[in-house]
Amino acid sequence: MTRFTKGHGTENDFVLVPDLEGSLELTPAQVQRIADRHAGLGADGVIRVVRTALSTDESVRAQSREAEWFMDYRNADGSPAEMCGNGTRVFAEYLRREGLAFGSTFGIATRAGVKTVRVIDGGYAVDLGPWRLADEQGARRDGFDVMVKPRHGKPVPALTLDLGNPHAVVMLPEGIALENLDLGEAPELHPEPADGSNVEFVRAVGPGHIAMRVHERGVGETRSCGTGAAAAALATRFWSGVEDLSPWTVDVPGGRLTVTPLPGQRVELAGPAVLVADGDFPL
Amino acid sequence: MTRFTKGHGTENDFVLVPDLEGSLELTPAQVQRIADRHAGLGADGVIRVVRTALSTDESVRAQSREAEWFMDYRNADGSPAEMCGNGTRVFAEYLRREGLAFGSTFGIATRAGVKTVRVIDGGYAVDLGPWRLADEQGARRDGFDVMVKPRHGKPVPALTLDLGNPHAVVMLPEGIALENLDLGEAPELHPEPADGSNVEFVRAVGPGHIAMRVHERGVGETRSCGTGAAAAALATRFWSGVEDLSPWTVDVPGGRLTVTPLPGQRVELAGPAVLVADGDFPL
Repeated sequence: MTRFTKGHGTENDFVLVPDLEGSLELTPAQVQRIADRHAGLGADGVIRVVRTALSTDESVRAQSREAEWFMDYRNADGSPAEMCGNGTRVFAEYLRREGLAFGSTFGIATRAGVKTVRVIDGGYAVDLGPWRLADEQGARRDGFDVMVKPRHGKPVPALTLDLGNPHAVVMLPEGIALENLDLGEAPELHPEPADGSNVEFVRAVGPGHIAMRVHERGVGETRSCGTGAAAAALATRFWSGVEDLSPWTVDVPGGRLTVTPLPGQRVELAGPAVLVADGDFPL
Repeated sequence: MTRFTKGHGTENDFVLVPDLEGSLELTPAQVQRIADRHAGLGADGVIRVVRTALSTDESVRAQSREAEWFMDYRNADGSPAEMCGNGTRVFAEYLRREGLAFGSTFGIATRAGVKTVRVIDGGYAVDLGPWRLADEQGARRDGFDVMVKPRHGKPVPALTLDLGNPHAVVMLPEGIALENLDLGEAPELHPEPADGSNVEFVRAVGPGHIAMRVHERGVGETRSCGTGAAAAALATRFWSGVEDLSPWTVDVPGGRLTVTPLPGQRVELAGPAVLVADGDFPL
């Protein structure tokens, strides 16, 4: 039997599999079986918890002085992912509960380098790293650089951002309710980016406060997307013309996140982490 | 912490909560939280395992001489359900693994009375009880008694059956592929039954062998539906004009079931049961 913990961050959910001494080889088929929502445990992603120094990946092992534990993240389809913002909080909560991490700040090794986690009231804040406008020139000229057509909807202008992964953010015009959008299929982008894009639809709630829904590339609509929330807040901040470092509140279907621009064109994501259950399953 | 076991029967999945001595009150809110696929453990239904003699329901307690254990079934929305064909197999597998049931045949108490389970190679067979054509006269005259219109499709004739719950079965005409049906919304029935209906779409595979997809009333498309598989086989048997008691093989998206007509207008459902994981969660 293999030990597991199920957890979620704003309803982006994960199965954590502790493999502290790195003796487990999780095949894509095994990950798919674990993540299957009907025949398995069910999750958006599977995270192996392994000592950084024992990773088979040299670029991960190189992080072992700054981060004792490696978040070996796999998507539900079995493919490895570089990073997952909501996942880092759940990973951090697990490490602390298990007595594997201490203090108010610690590093987590990921395929995208060490991520620094800060313990805050009600959750964790994670430095997501650098971000940029995908087409700064176009954005500065028009405020938008791409058109997005939701299913059964009219094309609306959007702003593209790069947070390590691609995002297109739409500020919904008056008269289109966020709740009524049909995200059952991927929105179309014109021009269509070669590698596709995550798409965020934003409604302003108040000063420094937005609500959003997200269609994740290759996944579909999800309850929450960490980099998506950051992209949505950063795009709204860009449109507002304000360039200070005040935090933004972002309501996603699965809960509430806080996005804070950091000096040096970086961005921090903060939110809750919940461990739901622990158990055993045959791998 | 509360103990749980996750299991599935042809990918119809359940969280079992052992409460042998009947000390647990599962509120609808607790059931919803357990069944939530992102914030909870995730399941189509939650089953409390309780000693029949300790049920608070008198009509259940009355079954205690024939069935030691009561399958207290709740839908994912928290509402109690009378029965669940796929659930009885998972319940039976759990009882046997835990040493709570013995022998090749035993009874399970349900809100729809005692169900007799038979241990078979690779799973369990359960007597689902009586069935009937909802409109026998209409069915005998035309072979059909209702029209069903799938989303983005043309109306097709269907046969309605009553297996304790209502079903409308469509034999797909040549040229419509089962795989291409859009079951993202409930098919429309004409005339519309007052309480709605489960709808099964059937394709003939070979003699005594069908494939089907199902849209469950109030739920949506599911990977498997026990009474739906029985209705589909019984409707196809009716159309074929054969009235013997040979078994039917029914392929559902989540696996394979066997439906056997029993003497006295009853029907038996057989299939696999899998226990996926065990663990603890805070209720």
